[in-house]
Amino acid sequence: MPPGSSVEANLSKMQEQVLSRWKTDYAILNTYYGIDSLRNPDLADALTSAVNDWLVAEWLSKDTRVVANMQVQAQYPELAAREIERIGHHPGIVGIFLPARSERPYGNRSYYPMFEAAERLNLVVSIHFGGMSGNPPTSVGWPTYYFEHYVNMTVVFQSQISSMVVEGVFQRFPKLRVALNEGGWTWLPSLFWRLDKEWRGLRRETPWVDRLPSEIIRQNVRASLEPIDAPPKPGLLLDILEQIGSEEFLMFSTDYPHNHGAQLDDFLSVIPTPLREKIMGQNAAAFYNLTGAAVATK
Amino acid sequence: MPPGSSVEANLSKMQEQVLSRWKTDYAILNTYYGIDSLRNPDLADALTSAVNDWLVAEWLSKDTRVVANMQVQAQYPELAAREIERIGHHPGIVGIFLPARSERPYGNRSYYPMFEAAERLNLVVSIHFGGMSGNPPTSVGWPTYYFEHYVNMTVVFQSQISSMVVEGVFQRFPKLRVALNEGGWTWLPSLFWRLDKEWRGLRRETPWVDRLPSEIIRQNVRASLEPIDAPPKPGLLLDILEQIGSEEFLMFSTDYPHNHGAQLDDFLSVIPTPLREKIMGQNAAAFYNLTGAAVATK
Repeated sequence: MPPGSSVEANLSKMQEQVLSRWKTDYAILNTYYGIDSLRNPDLADALTSAVNDWLVAEWLSKDTRVVANMQVQAQYPELAAREIERIGHHPGIVGIFLPARSERPYGNRSYYPMFEAAERLNLVVSIHFGGMSGNPPTSVGWPTYYFEHYVNMTVVFQSQISSMVVEGVFQRFPKLRVALNEGGWTWLPSLFWRLDKEWRGLRRETPWVDRLPSEIIRQNVRASLEPIDAPPKPGLLLDILEQIGSEEFLMFSTDYPHNHGAQLDDFLSVIPTPLREKIMGQNAAAFYNLTGAAVATK
Repeated sequence: MPPGSSVEANLSKMQEQVLSRWKTDYAILNTYYGIDSLRNPDLADALTSAVNDWLVAEWLSKDTRVVANMQVQAQYPELAAREIERIGHHPGIVGIFLPARSERPYGNRSYYPMFEAAERLNLVVSIHFGGMSGNPPTSVGWPTYYFEHYVNMTVVFQSQISSMVVEGVFQRFPKLRVALNEGGWTWLPSLFWRLDKEWRGLRRETPWVDRLPSEIIRQNVRASLEPIDAPPKPGLLLDILEQIGSEEFLMFSTDYPHNHGAQLDDFLSVIPTPLREKIMGQNAAAFYNLTGAAVATK
């Protein structure tokens, strides 16, 4: 039975190809239903609840290793807060799923009700590749090819993280944690340096940003591992990790069911053992408050 | 007399603070008049010609060390091509000025008439910080603060270069050269790696991209030096230069009249001498076909 043709077939394939293969204690499941593209708030609300109920019934109840990011209707933050209240207390819900592309940047104050609920229920805000917000996928208009669109997605993550740091989300919600999923991470050092430099020059405009942006990001943000925009020499990855300046930042992920070839093995082959154990499980376990040695995120 | 209050005062200040200070043979002047924000093509056309005539009369005729990027009305590429034909042959015109933000990404085919004229007249396409295209300055909507907007500008450059490479501008116009001005460059390695990786996976969609994107960029694109999104340890800049993989890529610039503090001295203090000479003049001289040992771009 091909993938996608029934929940049971998908679950058993996933159990075999991810959970068993990586000896996983917890796998964080992401679902994407394009709720962010819906203009009708009642429809967005109904679909969000339906997907979340299905997630609990058909996935979280079938294998205790499977936990999930719940869907939210982020374009209506008050509704999103209500949905988080409704179902976010389920022990299998560990975060909320936000598509990387959005109508307004996620630092915008209009999202505060959603973040307030996520922080209160101890849910990680997971920003994930994708989205259909209505804005063009680049800041310079519509690209022509998927190749461009795909490459540009890292840029979307850079804008979101800049917005959340500069607009003060982490001062307003100090316990809020953000995970970057499927957006790469080798772009982080350059963004750190630019944010820190401009913080020195421009923070009089945003005085609530009370310490270096790179410190805020290292404390409140994590990135999942796959896919990796890796340099041609795997050894250079160690330079990037040193530039990121935190051994806690990366969390193992597979991007399953996408297949990114040998790059995961290449990465693991150059990472020394204590750091490897952090990336393979300890970092995500600590960030998500999960117990167990090994945790796979998507 | 304060800066900006007369052309003569600006010229003499610039002669003292840039040309004499850096023993400059050529300085490339950038002017920005917000022509990209004009919807009326006749007005855009008239203002473009007026600025260019003024540039020739008031700047290029007063000091032979001063050369310039001409203005173009890029939102109307046919008009831009005509303006390039009209004045682009002037010996003091070395390039065309494009604001980084645009209505469509610069790889879009609608820009071909403009690029065809620039290539034919041997003018460098200079993409410069700024622009008022009408699109929000980020792909996730309008940011709230200038701090965000400023940080996001690197992202705009990433989208533009991705677009030009992927849509095949450098196959259609193999001699076209692009300079990135005031957009930083420490983000380049990560973009190289992402473009190269996705080229392997997605180039069946864009078969004209006949070699690694990073090779195309190293051959046809350069970046000016200032401002630098520099790492906290200046020594790490050498890692970035190694990751860029070309000693020809950076061209000295000051971003005058902006003052970026000690970072230029910090940069120059860690760069070894043969590379330093390339960055201080040889790279720009070769890229712009200018004779002379030292060349300052903006």
